[in-house]
Amino acid sequence: MMEVKVTKTTNPKVKPDPATVPFGVAFTDHMFMMEYDSENGWQNPRIVPFGDISLNPGALVFHYGAEVFEGLKAYRTPSGEVQMFRPAENFKRMNNSAERLCLPQFDVEDAVEYLRKFVEVEKDWVPDQYGTSLYLRPFLFGTDADLALHGISHATFMVIACVVGSYYKSGLAPVDMLIEMDDVRAVRGGTGYAKCGGNYAAATRAGEKAAKKGYSQVVWVDGVERKYVEEGGGMNLMFVWDGKLVTPELNGSILPGVTRKSILELARSWGMETVERKITVDELMEGCKNGTVQEAFMCGTAAVVTPIGGFVRGEEKVVVNHNKIGEMTQKVYDELTGVQWGLKEDKFGWTVKVD
Amino acid sequence: MMEVKVTKTTNPKVKPDPATVPFGVAFTDHMFMMEYDSENGWQNPRIVPFGDISLNPGALVFHYGAEVFEGLKAYRTPSGEVQMFRPAENFKRMNNSAERLCLPQFDVEDAVEYLRKFVEVEKDWVPDQYGTSLYLRPFLFGTDADLALHGISHATFMVIACVVGSYYKSGLAPVDMLIEMDDVRAVRGGTGYAKCGGNYAAATRAGEKAAKKGYSQVVWVDGVERKYVEEGGGMNLMFVWDGKLVTPELNGSILPGVTRKSILELARSWGMETVERKITVDELMEGCKNGTVQEAFMCGTAAVVTPIGGFVRGEEKVVVNHNKIGEMTQKVYDELTGVQWGLKEDKFGWTVKVD
Ligand SMILES: Cc1ncc(COP(=O)(O)O)c(C=O)c1O
Ligand SMILES: Cc1ncc(COP(=O)(O)O)c(C=O)c1O
Repeated sequence: MMEVKVTKTTNPKVKPDPATVPFGVAFTDHMFMMEYDSENGWQNPRIVPFGDISLNPGALVFHYGAEVFEGLKAYRTPSGEVQMFRPAENFKRMNNSAERLCLPQFDVEDAVEYLRKFVEVEKDWVPDQYGTSLYLRPFLFGTDADLALHGISHATFMVIACVVGSYYKSGLAPVDMLIEMDDVRAVRGGTGYAKCGGNYAAATRAGEKAAKKGYSQVVWVDGVERKYVEEGGGMNLMFVWDGKLVTPELNGSILPGVTRKSILELARSWGMETVERKITVDELMEGCKNGTVQEAFMCGTAAVVTPIGGFVRGEEKVVVNHNKIGEMTQKVYDELTGVQWGLKEDKFGWTVKVD
Repeated sequence: MMEVKVTKTTNPKVKPDPATVPFGVAFTDHMFMMEYDSENGWQNPRIVPFGDISLNPGALVFHYGAEVFEGLKAYRTPSGEVQMFRPAENFKRMNNSAERLCLPQFDVEDAVEYLRKFVEVEKDWVPDQYGTSLYLRPFLFGTDADLALHGISHATFMVIACVVGSYYKSGLAPVDMLIEMDDVRAVRGGTGYAKCGGNYAAATRAGEKAAKKGYSQVVWVDGVERKYVEEGGGMNLMFVWDGKLVTPELNGSILPGVTRKSILELARSWGMETVERKITVDELMEGCKNGTVQEAFMCGTAAVVTPIGGFVRGEEKVVVNHNKIGEMTQKVYDELTGVQWGLKEDKFGWTVKVD
């Protein structure tokens, strides 16, 4: 690991009220950055005041989507300590994303340590109310000023952070999901399993369309047969189905969520059977109608768990669990947020202390 | 159209030798830019000295692949005039790309006029040897510093340019193409028809793999059935097949090339039958073997026409036209480059004079 040079801001910002701050805009005072080139590898890790970055307009990131990112959080425990949730999982996934896009990879342990140092500097920005946190956004992009289509030899890695409140301001409440049958987010053989910009660019239009119709999220179906449910907007999908925890199997076009993985581990530790398999839209709609689908929820870092109250496909609408939060959904939410905010014992060793 | 403010550089660069300059790196002295916000629309079109741009590290373009681009060229005719090739086609396509990604669109005529003004300022950069040109790169990206996944309300449009020599330094010569059976570039319902960063990010790995094996380009197959040929690397595919000009039909995952469209129009004007249809990898391999595929070539702005000498799928290799440039391939190349460089009459009104 290289030494991290720290330059503190002389002009600290006023911290926002985490109860009312919108997601993703209240950036902190500093940012982490380091650069890569194919001759020297990673160089010059540093923490500097948050501010604009300067790039050649020919840089790859502006043209060929050479960008991958991660999202995780730092939480404050009741005793005032700051901790992160499974950061190594995020950097392992970032390496997988980077491999798919031919961006440089890095040592996972080093990356966690750089992140830890960064959060240490921004410690005062981690809010202390349950449900609020500091959202951490590592990202990595190609910077060669070269419009020819070939490999990447220069890249920048950064971490920025912003204060976030509870994702759903009015509390955990079931949402209706629109099943998207036109636009496709990702396909097997493509970049769906990678957390890269292109997937989100492909997803924007359907998200906007759903929002206009009053739905908070879409359900993506697979791009090959347009038959299987894959993800829920920017989160993974989970069902309590005939008493088992069922989720779409990782097939190359689904992002392998850290929350998804953690919930599967939790459920198994509770003695619940978990099933990762293909799930057709038809059987999901049918299962909601006949009640074999007992609960449905989305899971991801931003909102932890989002209960699903119903699914809509064209004119067809089905309700899940009488549009109420399910027992398992609530239990998963309580357990995960309990561990994250340090209210419950961390039996799996998932948290990493910052100081 | 708004007035374009021009600020000239006080520090002009030395112009490169177009005979030896690599593609995509020799940027000119100026760049065009203007900004968009959802309240005021497009604002402040200007031409300024080429240089780094400053952006908030939270800007959408770094995270969610909110970026589309175009590629076209300015050519110098024997009489010294400068002209562009079908620029309105590029801006129509850019609007289609922008629509898919929820980026703002613009008036095509205005955009052509802005581009014309820009090239006028950079006129001296347009080289005068046949085969050399000034490559123009309009691009458009989202700049909201907001990590929430929703619509785009701030964007920047820019044009940069670089001097390019002949794409293939050693002249027009047949290349072998590797049929890519693992990685997928784009899928129907996704963003394949849009010229957006994510498609190129998805394409990098296969391109690198092919290059390592000694192939200059891959052939992409469709992402749904993995059965039909779609494109050749960053170019469209064309075949002379049983005396007809045959090309994969536009299906949503293929980029609708301006060169492709122009060649179809040319061939029809020559009385040649053109066919846009699905083409399986199997029938292509078979057609090359039994000689019904008489010629194969790629087409695109960068190289105009690239003859194909053979296709490789795993262990299987087939040769096209004895690995020689076909008659039609050469004729298309001569006609198109003739019109572009002002050596031949522009019967279709494809060129737009800059001054
Ligand atoms: C498309 C998509 N799926 C799933 C997830 C959930 O992943 P994680 O649990 O690692 O946050 C995310 C990120 O939050 C995502 O962007
Ligand atoms: C993927 C892809 N296909 C095809 C083309 C050809 O398009 P055009 O003829 O407009 O240059 C390009 C761009 O050059 C491309 O990037």
